[in-house]
Amino acid sequence: MPQAVAQSIILGDWGTSRLRLFRFCDGVEAGRIDGPGIAKLDASPATVLMRAVDPWRRDGVIASITLCGMAGARGGLVEAGYLECPADALDWRQNATALMLDHVSVRVMAGLRCRNPMGAPDVMRGEEAQIFGAIALDASLARGRYSFVLPGTHCKWVSVVDGRVEAFRTYPTGELYALLSEHSTLIAPGKAEGNDGDAGFAHGLARSAEPTLGALFEARAAQLVDGRSPGWARGFLSGLLIGGEVAAEAHPGLQPILVGDPKLCSRYGIALKAAGCRSRSIDGDVAVLAGLGLAKG
Amino acid sequence: MPQAVAQSIILGDWGTSRLRLFRFCDGVEAGRIDGPGIAKLDASPATVLMRAVDPWRRDGVIASITLCGMAGARGGLVEAGYLECPADALDWRQNATALMLDHVSVRVMAGLRCRNPMGAPDVMRGEEAQIFGAIALDASLARGRYSFVLPGTHCKWVSVVDGRVEAFRTYPTGELYALLSEHSTLIAPGKAEGNDGDAGFAHGLARSAEPTLGALFEARAAQLVDGRSPGWARGFLSGLLIGGEVAAEAHPGLQPILVGDPKLCSRYGIALKAAGCRSRSIDGDVAVLAGLGLAKG
Repeated sequence: MPQAVAQSIILGDWGTSRLRLFRFCDGVEAGRIDGPGIAKLDASPATVLMRAVDPWRRDGVIASITLCGMAGARGGLVEAGYLECPADALDWRQNATALMLDHVSVRVMAGLRCRNPMGAPDVMRGEEAQIFGAIALDASLARGRYSFVLPGTHCKWVSVVDGRVEAFRTYPTGELYALLSEHSTLIAPGKAEGNDGDAGFAHGLARSAEPTLGALFEARAAQLVDGRSPGWARGFLSGLLIGGEVAAEAHPGLQPILVGDPKLCSRYGIALKAAGCRSRSIDGDVAVLAGLGLAKG
Repeated sequence: MPQAVAQSIILGDWGTSRLRLFRFCDGVEAGRIDGPGIAKLDASPATVLMRAVDPWRRDGVIASITLCGMAGARGGLVEAGYLECPADALDWRQNATALMLDHVSVRVMAGLRCRNPMGAPDVMRGEEAQIFGAIALDASLARGRYSFVLPGTHCKWVSVVDGRVEAFRTYPTGELYALLSEHSTLIAPGKAEGNDGDAGFAHGLARSAEPTLGALFEARAAQLVDGRSPGWARGFLSGLLIGGEVAAEAHPGLQPILVGDPKLCSRYGIALKAAGCRSRSIDGDVAVLAGLGLAKG
């Protein structure tokens, strides 16, 4: 029989497509559990959460659960609102919504919102934990002006000044890629996938100086006319969309800090380099844990 | 009992999402039938076609059926290839693939293909019938240089010189709109649609000077933060995508001829006007019939 552990705390990032829970005992990581995203639940968020942590509960007391991301959206575990920008880690830490679930104390963190210079609203949920975590991990980022880029379903381009999130802009590039790649006529059905996705990516990147909307259809035409594979076409779409996003944001002197999945960050790094911008990357899991560590009850 | 008609000819436009068949007796239109698009068949294309025209066959002899569009695609009724640009109505008329179905003579027209100045391939199937039809209807279009725009699932921007299609570019704007409008997180589920779609369209159009990828997310954020309706957000996406497409193609002096669904052409007309371009519209049904009239056996 496993030895009972006195107390643990749980930190979690509950996004649209994935739940990631991390358990800590005496400050040491003691396990991870992956679960379904908020958009994919078969029961209430509270039921799904307590079911997910049940193995850890049977192994000892859970002192607290701290969650960021879509857990705080309307239709999530509890609506946790948005904190107005500019906002720093301290503001964020103080903007949690607390509830009790089955005698366990749960904190759900607020998202951030801002308006861009055109007056358009924008929102984030979960990425702020990664940004504040990255700053906590590297004290040099707490002073001065930095651009953070957080690739994913809804990629965020974030301006941070002296540790405060000043403003940001969302590019739904990951979602657009998934829709075009899986549900559009741009990918021919029923053909062998091919292993030339990297060549397609490079070709898409080379096209990304053109307006993105007018370059998308090459994915389909290249399969029909030039015998390209569906895998090439998917790579092309990825290169074109990431390249188009980078082209819209890149400017001389931009040296962004990429935070996210290392493989996806590497694709953004290639696109940024092609646009003349140096970048560096921080693992998104490491950053979100550091951020949730700031937020925990 | 209906009186038997000696002979009829059938003209048809068989697209991805819709089959439209027109019957002519002694040069006079004598009925229309709508059926499923090539992507939506429950039987072979030949079976679906002959089933669709069966009421007309029982009413008299069918002398010929002439089809344009995806009927000539791989996986359609018969693969009818692509004609290389530049190409005029005569070239096109001579590029039909003939077959017999149930003792009826069927002609399936070729599509067109071209390469843009960057070397990217592009293709069309069906729109060429509308272009050649529009030129047949208005002899003044047979001399000089014209820009045709054919809005739809895959909108075509076409350069025509002395009646020849020189080159074209496809914007998959209609398909992108449908994916984002029906299958993305940009539209909040379960809320009342609202009747402010036109206001959303105007707002999206006003945003379309910005890079489209970076402006899309306002559809979602405006629902979350500013209480906009899903209908407004759909209108916003339509205005942003059509406006972005027009912004990519518009240039001083452009006076395009819109050919297509009158309602959709009207939206493109508004976007063109906002970009400083006068345009005029031709009904797509009228144009495709005139084009198929040139092609018939």
